Amino acid sequence: MGRVTARRRVLRVRGAATSERVDTLAAEEPMEIRVNGAPLTVTMRTPGDDFDLAVGFLVGEGVVHKPDQVREIRYCAGATDEGINTYNVVDLALDHDVDLPATLERNFYTTSSCGVCGKASLEAVRTQSFWDVAGDAFTVSTDMLATLPDKLRDAQRVFDSTGGLHAAGLFTSVGELVVAREDVGRHNAVDKVIGDAYRNGRLPLRRSVLMVSGRASFELVQKAVMAGIPMLAAVSAPSSLAVELAEDAGLTLVGFLRGDSMNVYTGQHRVSRRC
Amino acid sequence: MGRVTARRRVLRVRGAATSERVDTLAAEEPMEIRVNGAPLTVTMRTPGDDFDLAVGFLVGEGVVHKPDQVREIRYCAGATDEGINTYNVVDLALDHDVDLPATLERNFYTTSSCGVCGKASLEAVRTQSFWDVAGDAFTVSTDMLATLPDKLRDAQRVFDSTGGLHAAGLFTSVGELVVAREDVGRHNAVDKVIGDAYRNGRLPLRRSVLMVSGRASFELVQKAVMAGIPMLAAVSAPSSLAVELAEDAGLTLVGFLRGDSMNVYTGQHRVSRRC
Repeated sequence: MGRVTARRRVLRVRGAATSERVDTLAAEEPMEIRVNGAPLTVTMRTPGDDFDLAVGFLVGEGVVHKPDQVREIRYCAGATDEGINTYNVVDLALDHDVDLPATLERNFYTTSSCGVCGKASLEAVRTQSFWDVAGDAFTVSTDMLATLPDKLRDAQRVFDSTGGLHAAGLFTSVGELVVAREDVGRHNAVDKVIGDAYRNGRLPLRRSVLMVSGRASFELVQKAVMAGIPMLAAVSAPSSLAVELAEDAGLTLVGFLRGDSMNVYTGQHRVSRRC
Repeated sequence: MGRVTARRRVLRVRGAATSERVDTLAAEEPMEIRVNGAPLTVTMRTPGDDFDLAVGFLVGEGVVHKPDQVREIRYCAGATDEGINTYNVVDLALDHDVDLPATLERNFYTTSSCGVCGKASLEAVRTQSFWDVAGDAFTVSTDMLATLPDKLRDAQRVFDSTGGLHAAGLFTSVGELVVAREDVGRHNAVDKVIGDAYRNGRLPLRRSVLMVSGRASFELVQKAVMAGIPMLAAVSAPSSLAVELAEDAGLTLVGFLRGDSMNVYTGQHRVSRRC
């Protein structure tokens, strides 16, 4: 589809020096996810790996978790005035045994008696998760973790040209890269990684580490738990609710992972220190 | 409310040296926005300035734009098992002349014949915006723009302790800071800045510059246009659709603003170069 980047003339200012040049931008387009023909949500994303994005989103929301629950995925509708498919509408045909909440986002945060609060959010993940992340026993070394940022950065092909993309990478417990994805939205990059794993029959992702650029939010920890990933590492800071969910679910959460520096917020038993 | 940060024990690794210490985290909690008692959306945000966040969100979606369209704002429901208000549900009573789309997000991207695409997104903003951003004639100097990142950084009180927050700051055309807000979500920080302006009767925000940490997405340009802000500056890269919307709306978009370096993507007539 060739829409991962776009070219654009730009006025470049470097102190007193200005010049006109052509700049490469990260592409952003809306994508609508439909389930059995009914619109579910719209996300702004970088085109590419759209089927993985759609499936990964449903895994993260606890809608699907085992093979064959997604029967078919296809681009549909979304033709321009000239009749050209925009490739911005993805429809998933789900198996008849799959329950889909009518209003996915809203129900998710209001299942508890406390109405809307962090505690209700934690409980929602606990009741919806199919995997025992806490029981996934293995250890990684801090030396291995220290190699992940550079490996993820090396895998970022588009970032180098645009400087505008978030990345997510899935690694084995010994630090081998399984798959890396880029997107204007960090949550989309994670959905694409997890959707790829689902479609290849690799859920739950035991003994693996998900590494993300930027911060670690509640939403990213939720997505990891729903995919059975026991360890999440981020370049920047986690939020309070991200740490609470990680502890609640038994996930190891590493923040500020830069070179051989890092903070381990939860699940420290999985991190073996240098001796 | 004192929930902007949270304290947490953490394992700190610096090469071979490890230590246990207490770390400060940016708080994250869900907040539900209701309109006339009906749930509209849930956002994960850093508590604080919640009324500004709720109003700013509605401004960004084109729901309200002039004073008195919001009659009352209050915290409601959301009590815990112990009967304590969570302060996570905000209800806005709107004037009877305000039309509210039933499904805000979905309608927004599907108003054009092309179904879901970037062009439809641009058209939606064009038809919904109440302000003539393109006609807002003024210039700023690159010297002034170069001062904004440090000024925004200086205004970030919470970032210094947590390293985990995005920031948005509103500046006058001569670089005076009007208001700055922080949040785990960059879009929330912008909503809080715009909501503050709305509630103080300052829309449209003519001759002003909105500066944000991180990247410039379509969504952030949309929020600026809806508030009548003619110039958006970001520390990092814009997306392709952000640039397209900025050009379409006549907004000046500056990216990679770091020290006296910057790229001006659109609306270059508002930027006077050093001579």
